[in-house]
Amino acid sequence: MKTTKIDFVIQHINAQIKTRSLLPGSRLPSVRALARQLNLSISTIVEAYERLAAQGLIEAKTGSGFFIAGPIAPLSISEIHPKINRNIDPLWISRQGLEAKSDVLKPGCGWLPADWMPHENIRKAIRKISKVNSNILTDYATPLGLLALRELLSRRILSKGIETIPNQILLTDSGTQAIDLICRYFLKPNDVVLVDDPCYFNFHALLKVHQVQIIGIPYTQNGPDLAAFSTAIQNHNPRLYITNSGIHNPTGAILTAATAYQVLKLVEQSNLIVIEDDIFADLELHTAPRLAALDGLSRVIHIGSFSKTLSGSVRTGYIATKHEWIEDLTDIKIATSFGGNHLSAEILFSTLTDGNYRKHLEELKIRLAKAMDSTIKQLEQLNIKPWLKPQAGLFLWGELPKHLDTASIAQTCLENGVILAPGNSFSQSQNFKNFIRFNVAQCINPQVFAVLSHAIQQEQERQN
Amino acid sequence: MKTTKIDFVIQHINAQIKTRSLLPGSRLPSVRALARQLNLSISTIVEAYERLAAQGLIEAKTGSGFFIAGPIAPLSISEIHPKINRNIDPLWISRQGLEAKSDVLKPGCGWLPADWMPHENIRKAIRKISKVNSNILTDYATPLGLLALRELLSRRILSKGIETIPNQILLTDSGTQAIDLICRYFLKPNDVVLVDDPCYFNFHALLKVHQVQIIGIPYTQNGPDLAAFSTAIQNHNPRLYITNSGIHNPTGAILTAATAYQVLKLVEQSNLIVIEDDIFADLELHTAPRLAALDGLSRVIHIGSFSKTLSGSVRTGYIATKHEWIEDLTDIKIATSFGGNHLSAEILFSTLTDGNYRKHLEELKIRLAKAMDSTIKQLEQLNIKPWLKPQAGLFLWGELPKHLDTASIAQTCLENGVILAPGNSFSQSQNFKNFIRFNVAQCINPQVFAVLSHAIQQEQERQN
Repeated sequence: MKTTKIDFVIQHINAQIKTRSLLPGSRLPSVRALARQLNLSISTIVEAYERLAAQGLIEAKTGSGFFIAGPIAPLSISEIHPKINRNIDPLWISRQGLEAKSDVLKPGCGWLPADWMPHENIRKAIRKISKVNSNILTDYATPLGLLALRELLSRRILSKGIETIPNQILLTDSGTQAIDLICRYFLKPNDVVLVDDPCYFNFHALLKVHQVQIIGIPYTQNGPDLAAFSTAIQNHNPRLYITNSGIHNPTGAILTAATAYQVLKLVEQSNLIVIEDDIFADLELHTAPRLAALDGLSRVIHIGSFSKTLSGSVRTGYIATKHEWIEDLTDIKIATSFGGNHLSAEILFSTLTDGNYRKHLEELKIRLAKAMDSTIKQLEQLNIKPWLKPQAGLFLWGELPKHLDTASIAQTCLENGVILAPGNSFSQSQNFKNFIRFNVAQCINPQVFAVLSHAIQQEQERQN
Repeated sequence: MKTTKIDFVIQHINAQIKTRSLLPGSRLPSVRALARQLNLSISTIVEAYERLAAQGLIEAKTGSGFFIAGPIAPLSISEIHPKINRNIDPLWISRQGLEAKSDVLKPGCGWLPADWMPHENIRKAIRKISKVNSNILTDYATPLGLLALRELLSRRILSKGIETIPNQILLTDSGTQAIDLICRYFLKPNDVVLVDDPCYFNFHALLKVHQVQIIGIPYTQNGPDLAAFSTAIQNHNPRLYITNSGIHNPTGAILTAATAYQVLKLVEQSNLIVIEDDIFADLELHTAPRLAALDGLSRVIHIGSFSKTLSGSVRTGYIATKHEWIEDLTDIKIATSFGGNHLSAEILFSTLTDGNYRKHLEELKIRLAKAMDSTIKQLEQLNIKPWLKPQAGLFLWGELPKHLDTASIAQTCLENGVILAPGNSFSQSQNFKNFIRFNVAQCINPQVFAVLSHAIQQEQERQN
């Protein structure tokens, strides 16, 4: 098709609408007349009119031609943005990060920069799918989701010692939806839920929607603090414990085998169900113990997604659990979202089974290790110490001098185009006022540290 | 790339794994050796090994080559299927329909047959997007979702008299998720919710998850029964009313202007919020009144999607409501699903703004009208009467002789490869034992009526 000519006609008509030489309700020149006038083919004009009609700018009336559509809805002058002075609640980082313009620096966000992601792999998968003459493009997914992808996931998690058959895996639209479905199944308002302190801030936001009581368990360099975990179980009869396996968010700590074993022993004596969120699995250097593997998916439910290493756009998560729970979780999924995204599951399957994904991961790990080193060095100069030096992953949990308030520093940084993740966003106890989580992949631009340094100085002055 | 040669190598290795000539842990031939042996290039073998590794079938060990992976997770022998004797609850039709093999006939399902859907339009959109060098493929969506699509939706719903700016529109992963988010925002357990009787069965399933009390309002050929609606408001102080606008599911009735006006007057005197589910909008022949248009999006929230006319695979729904509610609904969306499906929104935008979508709709309406006529004629021969003759849409609400139980007929049909939608699945009052909803697009195959006729006969014999 003559795309440029068609675009020319569309612009020609659009200009006349904007300058009001064509008013709402007025008739457009006939296809034949405009073709003659612009010296273009009739098919070009027809296609341009069709596209204008599809956009709601003009209307076709059968037998009498095309007309300028009624009053056009006002366009948004600007997008809604979270107020710059929005309180730093559990959703603050998500909203600032997701709404940020491309020139904003994002050391506070939980994802990789666009140019670290495997665009070519996904593009290849999409092209492949677009050539297949099949119903992938229009049919609803099956309730559990694409069987081939569930078979693959079953094999992938087996490498972490988690044994499943594909019928024990339910695809979801995202890792977050996976956790949400499990919460819907097990929780009622006022139930008690344990989280790590600190933990991923969106766990707080999600649990707030479920109207439950949240108790934070201090997280050590080996996993949750066992004494606090045991006391919380005894005193509060909690229903659920949500944690990360593999690489902990925000601290970068890795659960040790001994701690995992003790956690499970405590869980067994309680009423607890555990959600093990494994979304950073593909960034690990060595396979850490998984609670779900030790427990044999009895009380531990394993969830994951590929948003961190593959795409935050083509989204698919999953739940691995025992068969009797899968059946009920599937019913809840259908009731609340009907089908999953069939196309996304196909793209994910195609990308994961392409050998390039493994190469992408290997390069990614090397790149992250370098970024980790350089971030640690830069932060040292600002007197920010790593709580631990993570073996792998995106995150560094940085400790500032005790008296500094990182929420206030984050506000100053935001005004200067840098989104930070202040410590107390991650904390139920609010004991992390002087911490910041850094995404090392988003810390390549030295401007991050310049703005941060300035904000810390300002905070120090404010306090004097 | 030499796809066939690569596939040949993959099959070659797979065969050896299956026949156990290569056991778990054993080393594969070196790339060079296998290339020589099979007389193929080294790059072909490397790519085949990479793909086998991506599928978890073999493992690379740095410096020492490729090995057969450990015990392979058992594959599912068969998929979970809802038991054929599962009780006919609100999820019965969804699960039977979504899990059905392709040779099963589906007059009970709520979607179009695959070959009625615009595959070429979507394929074109996907190809276009795969060529763009952009971050559509990997970046999270913004919280409200793709601005261009929201601008388009704003213009589209204006043609139904609903005035919005794009900031009043929130994209969701599906129409069902749109309703679910609104329920999460407004409802608490034990609240009272009004639905039409009959109504779309998934409203019952969704509301059950929210643990609310459901009251059915008899649906007339002009809309909800006003006396019953008024009484329910007075006696139960309901919080929410969920209904279809445009074309009612399952009856095919269209809300009249006079009824819409009276409904709104009653709503204004109450505590009610109304969800107007408009997912069949694009199948209308004439624009019916919309509650959201009359009400100015004050108490009425308008939702929609394109699963019925464009794709059940590439899913995107939307909510149009007042700005203050959008902000809170966005927070709930992020907390419970983080980002929306960015790629799906781009594909939808591209498909909708292509002139071919309008042509697809015009052809679809003609095809549906023909299918409606023919279904009505076929059903007459089985003594099944249309409750009304719908002006448009997919559905015909068929009435059988009073004594017949369509749940029992549906079970017989299922055993014979036909999924029906028995009347009481749609009903809170359970007053529709002798009704069936027919999707006329899925009634083209005469086998539907043969199986149905046989099942009716059997039900008649059972009763004698």
